[in-house]
Amino acid sequence: MKIPAPKYTRDFYPEEMRRREWIEAAWVDASRAAGFLPWDGPIFETLELYKRKSGNEIVEQLFNLASKGSQELAVRPEMTPSLARMIANRQASLPRPIKWYTIGRMCRYERGQRGRLREFWQWNVDLLGVDGPIADAEVMSVAVDGLERLGLTADDVALRINSRSLLSALLTSLGIAPDQHARVYGVTDKKGKVAQPELEKLYAQIGLSQETLTQILDLMNSQSIDDVRSFASRRSDEQVAKEIAKLEELFSHLASLEKGPYCQFDIGIVRGLAYYTGPVFEIFDRKGELRAVCGGGRYDQLMETMGGQAMPACGFGMGDVVLGELLNERKLAPPSDSPLDYYLIPMGDERLADVLSLTQRFRKGGKKVDYSPKAGNLSKMLKKASETGVKSVILVGGEEWTRGQVKIRDMQSREEREVSITDLV
Amino acid sequence: MKIPAPKYTRDFYPEEMRRREWIEAAWVDASRAAGFLPWDGPIFETLELYKRKSGNEIVEQLFNLASKGSQELAVRPEMTPSLARMIANRQASLPRPIKWYTIGRMCRYERGQRGRLREFWQWNVDLLGVDGPIADAEVMSVAVDGLERLGLTADDVALRINSRSLLSALLTSLGIAPDQHARVYGVTDKKGKVAQPELEKLYAQIGLSQETLTQILDLMNSQSIDDVRSFASRRSDEQVAKEIAKLEELFSHLASLEKGPYCQFDIGIVRGLAYYTGPVFEIFDRKGELRAVCGGGRYDQLMETMGGQAMPACGFGMGDVVLGELLNERKLAPPSDSPLDYYLIPMGDERLADVLSLTQRFRKGGKKVDYSPKAGNLSKMLKKASETGVKSVILVGGEEWTRGQVKIRDMQSREEREVSITDLV
Repeated sequence: MKIPAPKYTRDFYPEEMRRREWIEAAWVDASRAAGFLPWDGPIFETLELYKRKSGNEIVEQLFNLASKGSQELAVRPEMTPSLARMIANRQASLPRPIKWYTIGRMCRYERGQRGRLREFWQWNVDLLGVDGPIADAEVMSVAVDGLERLGLTADDVALRINSRSLLSALLTSLGIAPDQHARVYGVTDKKGKVAQPELEKLYAQIGLSQETLTQILDLMNSQSIDDVRSFASRRSDEQVAKEIAKLEELFSHLASLEKGPYCQFDIGIVRGLAYYTGPVFEIFDRKGELRAVCGGGRYDQLMETMGGQAMPACGFGMGDVVLGELLNERKLAPPSDSPLDYYLIPMGDERLADVLSLTQRFRKGGKKVDYSPKAGNLSKMLKKASETGVKSVILVGGEEWTRGQVKIRDMQSREEREVSITDLV
Repeated sequence: MKIPAPKYTRDFYPEEMRRREWIEAAWVDASRAAGFLPWDGPIFETLELYKRKSGNEIVEQLFNLASKGSQELAVRPEMTPSLARMIANRQASLPRPIKWYTIGRMCRYERGQRGRLREFWQWNVDLLGVDGPIADAEVMSVAVDGLERLGLTADDVALRINSRSLLSALLTSLGIAPDQHARVYGVTDKKGKVAQPELEKLYAQIGLSQETLTQILDLMNSQSIDDVRSFASRRSDEQVAKEIAKLEELFSHLASLEKGPYCQFDIGIVRGLAYYTGPVFEIFDRKGELRAVCGGGRYDQLMETMGGQAMPACGFGMGDVVLGELLNERKLAPPSDSPLDYYLIPMGDERLADVLSLTQRFRKGGKKVDYSPKAGNLSKMLKKASETGVKSVILVGGEEWTRGQVKIRDMQSREEREVSITDLV
């Protein structure tokens, strides 16, 4: 009786693996090109770590480990808590800025649905120790570089940017108390996901004055930074002006980094997570059919929350599931590649030892080589070879062998030529 | 307050990551050179899968997931069950032979001690669909290739080989019933780990006749295949002769694959796991100070046990913990490598946009590039640059800039030269 795979997970056969490696290579290359260094943490962490960052609600989403020792543990649902823990442990000695990336699997106990699985791969890029819009621009630019290396362009995806600190300044300028901001963000997070009347109802439920409510709805109609500026111009507020200037500086840096065509201001981007403190962003497919491909932002208070010293920080996470759907839809796939350079065939069992010895010399020389484990019917062996996708087959034996030569057969043209072994290896 | 890491796990800061990536690259290269294709399964599987392969005893060693849905799940302690499950699910359609490798993390709930952690990385190489010693030679050769690519030689490690089918034929020829073989293997597995008198006591406890016991102790003194042959010559047994011939063929193939200097016959290698059916092997450091670096063998009955069709199969697993200790001891480490090609410095804040634009052009062209996020004191910025290990710093600005040129500074020689931007990008 066969045993099923766990629900909402994936098996990676070599074909699926080729695709996963293609995506990971793009992520690695984009990270390294920008001078980010790799890091990794354990696959499980203490429950305490996840609660510290996200509160008790996170526990429902976790795959907890059945208790065996003194530590309560859970499989990692994200990397940021591990990042903060590891940086806190060596904060004094790590050279600044800290530019780190990691690619790895995460698990969340979720209902399986489109774009959501219980195990997925995520690329994380974080920059700590640099304040100001240039750091935000750097991580956003790397996120887009990762997508460009997979063949996506500004026609396919948009980088939607907002600023939590700008929103906060705007809400304060409207007289909304700081302790109510979270509720406004909570509703704003639903913008574009629920219909406008529903959204207005949700804002109304917060319990703001009718005048404030009207202003918020007006603010939420902003389509550009200019709209926000003209909204703000009705009441002069230094903090709002400062935040607008910072956001404009961010857009300007992104333009210098050739990301202009991707960028959109979007007042509806607030990111669900509570810990963002500055610019926030998400990358979406332009058709708007999928969930966000990527999300991130500035989180200047996290290091303190997690037991470290205060440190400016920003970063993003990009998962492989929604991205995989987008790549499928755009018919983007890894370039075809033969897994073998040569396939060796012994012309008689007495040549098997020579095949093995030649194979080993080729492999040492950097070639990818396989061989037929026994002699036999040549056309059957050639068929076997062609199934591997190899381009050249080497026939070892016959009277050429006595002359120190082998026949190389081009599997496409079916042409054969004789080559001396010493030239070949 | 800082939060500790889970017990007996490791944090990979960029420095440790460089080492892990070096090991993984050697494993990947050795696998691909021999035409093995990558695969992967989920990080957790159903408890049923692990019990099917290893019985109920395995459960103690597992990190079980706290029950949330209808499936009982556990974090993977090894890859072979996932391999068998995935092959069983597509057995009819997968091209033969199946040559697969995987590298990934595993977790076992164990006491932390030297060479044993609760999370480790393991390289698995498996060859299914080919019978006979040539397949065993192929996987053993790839294991050694993986070590050679890290700088280890036959002076550092030995490949100790035995055959469960030879042992079984020998025990049968001594009149030991098949249902007692497992107990003999169980004791033999302790050879070299406990003192000789202790070992003899354990054999005696099996309950064999005094004559058989004497013969077993005699057999276990064999130092070579020739010793086994002369032991066997006292009673002519066709099956034993056949198994000796197969083992000799294996050694001969390994010699053709340039692995002769590594190979040792070792009658004490039986591998604890019950599922091996033919040749078995372990790789040890020659000094004998560490646990086995690698272990594997032939497991022809596993596919049936796991719900598939019968299929010849062999493979190995190599973990990163003992290997890491061995590499440390031999002072083998990854070659040093600068994470950056260029570090750009703006000579004045008005050049920052140019620095970003140049940076992006370099990165797109395949260079690894970082920059100073603001202008300032040049010697401070040069110090920052030199901390990154970069070889060349590019100074953007000054009167060269107006001529379309930049200064490149060699960080070792401290020499500067002017280059035109168009030539550079």
